[in-house]
Amino acid sequence: MGRVTVRRPVTRIREGSVSRRPDTLVAEEPMEIRLGGRPLAITMRTPGEDFALAVGFLVSEGVLAQHSELSGVAYCAGTAMDGDVPYNTYNTVDVRLAPEVPLPDVSLERNVYTTSSCGLCGKASLDAVRTRSRWPLPPAGEDRLSTDTLAELPDRLRSRQRVFDRTGGLHAAALFRFDGELVDAAEDVGRHNAVDKLVGRALQEDRLPLAHTVLMVSGRASFELAQKAVMAGIPVLAAVSAPSALAVELAEETGLGLAGFVRGSSMNLYAGEDRFALPSPAEAPASASRSGSASPSAPDPAPK
Amino acid sequence: MGRVTVRRPVTRIREGSVSRRPDTLVAEEPMEIRLGGRPLAITMRTPGEDFALAVGFLVSEGVLAQHSELSGVAYCAGTAMDGDVPYNTYNTVDVRLAPEVPLPDVSLERNVYTTSSCGLCGKASLDAVRTRSRWPLPPAGEDRLSTDTLAELPDRLRSRQRVFDRTGGLHAAALFRFDGELVDAAEDVGRHNAVDKLVGRALQEDRLPLAHTVLMVSGRASFELAQKAVMAGIPVLAAVSAPSALAVELAEETGLGLAGFVRGSSMNLYAGEDRFALPSPAEAPASASRSGSASPSAPDPAPK
Repeated sequence: MGRVTVRRPVTRIREGSVSRRPDTLVAEEPMEIRLGGRPLAITMRTPGEDFALAVGFLVSEGVLAQHSELSGVAYCAGTAMDGDVPYNTYNTVDVRLAPEVPLPDVSLERNVYTTSSCGLCGKASLDAVRTRSRWPLPPAGEDRLSTDTLAELPDRLRSRQRVFDRTGGLHAAALFRFDGELVDAAEDVGRHNAVDKLVGRALQEDRLPLAHTVLMVSGRASFELAQKAVMAGIPVLAAVSAPSALAVELAEETGLGLAGFVRGSSMNLYAGEDRFALPSPAEAPASASRSGSASPSAPDPAPK
Repeated sequence: MGRVTVRRPVTRIREGSVSRRPDTLVAEEPMEIRLGGRPLAITMRTPGEDFALAVGFLVSEGVLAQHSELSGVAYCAGTAMDGDVPYNTYNTVDVRLAPEVPLPDVSLERNVYTTSSCGLCGKASLDAVRTRSRWPLPPAGEDRLSTDTLAELPDRLRSRQRVFDRTGGLHAAALFRFDGELVDAAEDVGRHNAVDKLVGRALQEDRLPLAHTVLMVSGRASFELAQKAVMAGIPVLAAVSAPSALAVELAEETGLGLAGFVRGSSMNLYAGEDRFALPSPAEAPASASRSGSASPSAPDPAPK
């Protein structure tokens, strides 16, 4: 099995002082995802939860949507050769679909699986997600996420970043219920992998679609993360940092609630406002509204 | 042409107060890279510098190494169809190689170009980078980067993050000479794209290999970024946040200098110490060495 962290010596410089000591680094290794023995995608990931990662990736790509469609997941045993270079097959995961589930066709493979980091971007991206999603988001308005609850989630996410605390090198993603209770959390060097691990575990435990949950991520809200939320039926995506314009467009077209810059009692809602319960007017005197830039004034020295 | 930023209305919540106003978001759009008309890779990127991005990607993948090997770069004109979905071909860039430059073969395409986000990870990654690099790094020790100079680079990088200042949603990368002078800077929603843009412009201006320069990045130092530095002949990679274990291994095997957690006068050197000029002992009393965790104690609430 792969390692989640690695100890290595490091030269530390602190205000002119030099010392040498061991440090803990986050592991990063390639993993190949195969479908019925056929290579589909390769991703750089933090080892661990590899089966969930492979399964979640296939949910994001629209191949899998529920547990009954999954026949099995396994490591390719032993050592194999790539040309004359041997590689460890614990970095190769094979997913077998149930017999009735159609394999993606070749043109799909060309357009989708060549792009493990960006999902459906080979197509007119928004249309493709809308067409392929197997889990329509639940109607907005019947169950709202309180922005007061949302304000507490970044700290709860942070408290679950166990490997990050040792390495400073990981992204985190977590699923919370609308009452703020944690459902699941995952860490990875890649933001998209952390989300795939969450979605994959949900499919393995037959918990899709993930209605009435919010996906909280440690970094930015890219198009890809919005896509993964929609494909898993998650109605709200919240990020500590900024969304991209395309992520907001996808959220608007699919009804996904999208919050960004969620920091303490401050946040921005970019789409799907009817999925949120806003502060009541009694708590929100108009005079308290601040002027200035639409983005939080707090500096963000390290964008993600 | 694509847009770098997009204005959209946003609902702001600040300590119980709700307001609605326009905000500036960073654009994110898919771009397909073709080689002689043949699709090779798709990446989600911030529009702008698309030709440099395409060319730099091909340097990272070992297809191109110098300006004379590049015949031309062009947008695919007009509108095309993907199935029955039209898409804008300003998001498709075709690179033409000089006649004598070999096209990558099919097996290479399978192993390399299916993985635009992770480079050579389909192979035994370290060996592959070492084998394919056309620009051996200059010998270490003859020209050293002062850690005092390095300490100033994050602020200089930050001052060049023009779009980030408006959107909070971008990664930045910059090349500096060892005397601290800025050579070039780029921003993108993807860290790897920002570096490809720098490397691509260098090839277009016939400035490869980028010896005697340091590549400074706003986020983490992943394997992929270390790979891109090595392929362009850049001898030092410095990051504001943590490196991965595989990035450190690649740096050690290739002689790349690798610094992480570069923040003010604090930093960690993970590999290639002989590429750095450390603080002299006179400036570094041993008693000033701090105890505690090997990683900086300053919290990093938003890992990249």
